[in-house]
Amino acid sequence: MKILVINCGSSSLKYQLIDMQNEEALAIGLVERIGIEGSILTQKANGEKYVIETPMKDHQVAIELVLDALKDEKHGVIKSMDEISAVGHRVVHGGEKYAHSVVVTDEVMKNLEECAKLAPLHNPANIIGINACKALMPSTPMVVVFDTAFHQTMPESAYIYALPYEAYTEHSVRRYGMHGTSHKYVSDKVAEVMGKNIEDLKIITCHLGNGASLTAVKNGKSVDTSMGFTPLEGLVMGTRCGDIDPAIVPYLMKEMNISAAEVDTLMNKKSGVLGISGVSSDFRDIEGAAKEGNHRAALALDVFHYRVKQYIGAYSAAMNGVDVIVFTAGLGENSIASRAEICKDMEYLGVKLDEERNNVRGKIAEISAADSKVKVFVIPTNEELMIARDTKELAF
Amino acid sequence: MKILVINCGSSSLKYQLIDMQNEEALAIGLVERIGIEGSILTQKANGEKYVIETPMKDHQVAIELVLDALKDEKHGVIKSMDEISAVGHRVVHGGEKYAHSVVVTDEVMKNLEECAKLAPLHNPANIIGINACKALMPSTPMVVVFDTAFHQTMPESAYIYALPYEAYTEHSVRRYGMHGTSHKYVSDKVAEVMGKNIEDLKIITCHLGNGASLTAVKNGKSVDTSMGFTPLEGLVMGTRCGDIDPAIVPYLMKEMNISAAEVDTLMNKKSGVLGISGVSSDFRDIEGAAKEGNHRAALALDVFHYRVKQYIGAYSAAMNGVDVIVFTAGLGENSIASRAEICKDMEYLGVKLDEERNNVRGKIAEISAADSKVKVFVIPTNEELMIARDTKELAF
Repeated sequence: MKILVINCGSSSLKYQLIDMQNEEALAIGLVERIGIEGSILTQKANGEKYVIETPMKDHQVAIELVLDALKDEKHGVIKSMDEISAVGHRVVHGGEKYAHSVVVTDEVMKNLEECAKLAPLHNPANIIGINACKALMPSTPMVVVFDTAFHQTMPESAYIYALPYEAYTEHSVRRYGMHGTSHKYVSDKVAEVMGKNIEDLKIITCHLGNGASLTAVKNGKSVDTSMGFTPLEGLVMGTRCGDIDPAIVPYLMKEMNISAAEVDTLMNKKSGVLGISGVSSDFRDIEGAAKEGNHRAALALDVFHYRVKQYIGAYSAAMNGVDVIVFTAGLGENSIASRAEICKDMEYLGVKLDEERNNVRGKIAEISAADSKVKVFVIPTNEELMIARDTKELAF
Repeated sequence: MKILVINCGSSSLKYQLIDMQNEEALAIGLVERIGIEGSILTQKANGEKYVIETPMKDHQVAIELVLDALKDEKHGVIKSMDEISAVGHRVVHGGEKYAHSVVVTDEVMKNLEECAKLAPLHNPANIIGINACKALMPSTPMVVVFDTAFHQTMPESAYIYALPYEAYTEHSVRRYGMHGTSHKYVSDKVAEVMGKNIEDLKIITCHLGNGASLTAVKNGKSVDTSMGFTPLEGLVMGTRCGDIDPAIVPYLMKEMNISAAEVDTLMNKKSGVLGISGVSSDFRDIEGAAKEGNHRAALALDVFHYRVKQYIGAYSAAMNGVDVIVFTAGLGENSIASRAEICKDMEYLGVKLDEERNNVRGKIAEISAADSKVKVFVIPTNEELMIARDTKELAF
């Protein structure tokens, strides 16, 4: 059984065709600049890279080209579309309606439209992708997997903000959390690797990429997570500010004479490690600049690491302790220095890294010292596989 | 030596006359409704209450009445104004200029005016109070004690927000922290009570009143605190929301069609436990409603306690552990239930309350169990005494 996984952005589309027998990706592709000049599809399969540059006026055209690339005689991996048993779609926001993945129906599509207000940058693109696939593969079952679903187990005390209660009941303002598919994948995986029942573990999962969030996973359930109503809250990210005094928002609007939309852009696109460092939103560039003595670059890293450290502390308090800390996503899997900084001076909690074991990138590894009370792991995330698994389970 | 301590609000004024020989308050007073109909002065001295109701058009008139009350033949505590050796003024915001208290000079007054932008609700009233005292007691030395000063020892990584760096350099946006006089007083006091050198302690001070903040005090220095650019950040308070996803601010402005000033008021005046519960901003009312089965009241308390717990966790991580947790201010000193809730399920950190010892209100007490690794204390705060001490030290 082969499952196509689609992750649709406003002008881009990532995809993987996964063979569910061995859970391996047969093809991994990226389409960029959909609806913009210079549209391009890049597919990796059979150890080769296949590139198509051709105008793509919309997502439907892009998905047609994806299917063509998958079926391509020379560069493809399937002979006919019939080999695609089902399609799994990543959807960012499921609101409070979806605590689990779900088979696409008309009602689901209607609910997705309703949730679009909560994720105006993401859900509309996800919906376009689903509709384009439905038009091209009308008889193939489709499943949507929500980035928010895993966090629907959070208790009320973790998801209610101390705003007038009507902000929740009338305007749907609450903590939803994101990266749920990733947090669930790596927490399940680490329990498996440790040979433990996830029901017996307190896990803190650190998804550290250009977007970044931490989750407290107790007995297999998300009990708190650092992203909130939107992906802006929590950790310092590539271009997002994370937690700030909310009074800064109206203050800056007045001081800088900018609108609500402009301050939102400032916080989402011009802040984070980019904002502090002035160098880049890419942690590798910032690490480089810091090594060359750039003070603001070093400060950006310090602030980033310090915030992660505080959330590890806060979530340990939330769960009355922690058994294992997991690092995942681009930075979590690859930055030896960041993992070392975050875990430094955490003896009070029983965290002790092993410098040699930590010298690892992008693969499953236990990086804590043998005598560390709290175990620390690197677990590469695989959101696509998680989506494919849910799709397989629900579509048949 | 007797020192007058003044804490001036926009339409109110608190004062104490403190005898520095035994550090006891000879008189404690409150003036309300200055410049408004129904002005009233209430003074407690010699075990008696003395009330004056008379129009007070401004702070200078109010302070004249304070001096009269202190000198009153029947209800007063001094014979002549000459007995007041110095005046100590509480000032909310000292910006980055003041890491310590300072004797009032023309330059200081100029700097206070400059800081007023950072505390528009508080500094202007503080300045009016100083000027009124100067007019009435031109030859008496005056000292200002800043609520922000104690936190000026925070490292850059704790006070820089992940916003464009220009928000700091051009608009002075950074974490300043408040309640500094209280956090310093109770951290000094707990070290003294424990018979330890504060240089050897990691202390978390929980100032829990209608305004509330936590501070991480390492070796006697504030290394982080939960209030930020303004008193809005951090804990859930009586009417303040504390930490929220900053993206909620522009979202609510659009959804509710309200201005930046209106959303600021919503977050400062209509949120917090009042906002969640819909009952009251007073914790006693909310505890009562929760006991009667009001779900939103119980939720408000849960969210409040959970946030304090998370900050204790975060600051333990910031200091690589904690030796002692101190509860102070209205709720911290008096709510047995809140202290119990906050310290519940914190065994991972080595915190264990003693139920019987915790059955205490408003006095110095060790409330942790004998075998608790982390000590927990109730220490009543005394900001006025702290101000008087600084004034004595600097004025002569």
